[in-house]
Amino acid sequence: MNNNSTLKPDTLQNGSQICIAVSCGDINGVAPEIILKTHGFIRKLCRVQYAVHRELLEQAAGLLKLSVPDDIELIEPDAPVPDILPGRCTKESGKYSFASFETALKQTENDACGALVTMPVSKKAWQIAGIPYVGYTDALSKRYGRQGIMTLGRPGFYVSLYTDHIPLKAVPDKLYEEELSNFLLNLHASADAGSIAVTGLNPHAGEEGLLGQEDKLIRDVIGQVNRKIGREIYRGPFPGDSAFTPAMRRRFSHYVAMYHDQGLIPVKTLFFEEAVNISLNLPVKRVSPDHGTAFDIAYCNSPHLSCTSYIEAVKTAVRWARREIFMSDITHNF
Amino acid sequence: MNNNSTLKPDTLQNGSQICIAVSCGDINGVAPEIILKTHGFIRKLCRVQYAVHRELLEQAAGLLKLSVPDDIELIEPDAPVPDILPGRCTKESGKYSFASFETALKQTENDACGALVTMPVSKKAWQIAGIPYVGYTDALSKRYGRQGIMTLGRPGFYVSLYTDHIPLKAVPDKLYEEELSNFLLNLHASADAGSIAVTGLNPHAGEEGLLGQEDKLIRDVIGQVNRKIGREIYRGPFPGDSAFTPAMRRRFSHYVAMYHDQGLIPVKTLFFEEAVNISLNLPVKRVSPDHGTAFDIAYCNSPHLSCTSYIEAVKTAVRWARREIFMSDITHNF
Repeated sequence: MNNNSTLKPDTLQNGSQICIAVSCGDINGVAPEIILKTHGFIRKLCRVQYAVHRELLEQAAGLLKLSVPDDIELIEPDAPVPDILPGRCTKESGKYSFASFETALKQTENDACGALVTMPVSKKAWQIAGIPYVGYTDALSKRYGRQGIMTLGRPGFYVSLYTDHIPLKAVPDKLYEEELSNFLLNLHASADAGSIAVTGLNPHAGEEGLLGQEDKLIRDVIGQVNRKIGREIYRGPFPGDSAFTPAMRRRFSHYVAMYHDQGLIPVKTLFFEEAVNISLNLPVKRVSPDHGTAFDIAYCNSPHLSCTSYIEAVKTAVRWARREIFMSDITHNF
Repeated sequence: MNNNSTLKPDTLQNGSQICIAVSCGDINGVAPEIILKTHGFIRKLCRVQYAVHRELLEQAAGLLKLSVPDDIELIEPDAPVPDILPGRCTKESGKYSFASFETALKQTENDACGALVTMPVSKKAWQIAGIPYVGYTDALSKRYGRQGIMTLGRPGFYVSLYTDHIPLKAVPDKLYEEELSNFLLNLHASADAGSIAVTGLNPHAGEEGLLGQEDKLIRDVIGQVNRKIGREIYRGPFPGDSAFTPAMRRRFSHYVAMYHDQGLIPVKTLFFEEAVNISLNLPVKRVSPDHGTAFDIAYCNSPHLSCTSYIEAVKTAVRWARREIFMSDITHNF
């Protein structure tokens, strides 16, 4: 966590306090425990509405020997309340986490809330529940008919993914001129970054064609996009392996990586607990902690449970809700 | 660099001082400058033979306003001495760096030297010089008819690459049972590691098949190989993005990554200057600094030049020359 995380309530520019909507994530994972354990802290940062039934939070609190805070504000999802089965990946938990997401999203769409924080779901549970989306970003992209840009990191270091949750072998075929050009233009329109480093696809960014041809296309598109924007926003392609060295991180606070592991390895290797997941290029502002359901430690009061990423996600959501667009160097001054 | 890098001469077990062979790398890059600037320091660690003409080192020294150390020991490669063209990628420099490599390698093969340190070459220069190898590891693998295992890192953190200098789109097709099984068995035979973490290929290691099928094969092969070895040496597959978090690095000091950027991003992001490149599974012990030719700063006496990785490479070579096999947690106690 940042040293400058002093706490004071944040407010919208019109004077009313910012409200953040929180979807409850997979109820068999750690999300309900994180909600229960952080509410007192979060409540000092902003007003918050959790999309979850009181009955479910009470089940969770019972399993963890905690109590449900008195001042908690809940919006009930339109779904039956399942029994919590710690660590299990079930159809019922998949259905419930999706219903919670829809409920929290509606609160954001109708401006009751300024931004949305989504807790981790099991992609597998969504699949067996028949939810036709790979994850939140995919669901949001299809809802709004525009590609959400998955961006992970923390203040001063963000990585946007050109491709995200697809098999590695599908990545090279997704790399073509129009798609990459639109991606870079959309990212520029939704994030304010001085300059953004773009990685190559192949080892050594193809080493002049010796290790693959796609990096030349990336170079050409960067040139075209910069000319359209009228500024040298995008730089590269840089070889993936040396793009995230300390010297490069002093030059750039925002990156575009070509695929999931290329972008997320540096984020999680450097900033595992602090990193958050941001969806850019969408009409709603959505932030998520950068961890999974953690089924293996659910409902154990585990000492390995960290609430840091969730707290950082809420802070990022509050800061972002106060601005029109996302700032790559967004700072946490509360 | 480690705090415990106190210096004392190292010796072979039979009492004679260890000798390391050094190939000179691409002469238009930073390698000759590194050799000239570090010789006085290196000479205290071990005896060293550089595969380079005096005439060429004198050219380099002239350009850099340095002098060639009196006590330098040279073995002349079987190639004409080209003019140095700083920062240029030429046929002549490609031919010369390959000849230097062959000369230094022979000194290692005939046991005049206990290990080989190779300075960075330009893969492009090798290509235009008609050298039929993608790089050193490829050349060594073809020479000995067995796959060298490219391993990068520093004491306490090494990553071996299942695939290395191939286009990303060729990676999934290289992943099949027999090949991976042989790779893991060979790695085990050439490196002594308590346990080794293996990454998956796809995002989230395929998330139970949802994001790709190859990770199941990796899991099956890990099981087979562990049964053959009779111990749980290999663990995983772990999702690439969370494999290198601080908690995971406390559990594992050696990893197998499926492809170049997946393995080298954590190495270079965390340990850019200190990391070295080691070839396992070969009859010679070969170590290399973990940087390229750095054509952009060649012959400038640049303040950005770092000799750290080369010095670490020589130290690793000396330590390795004293042991039968490579130790993943190899420590630098000199």
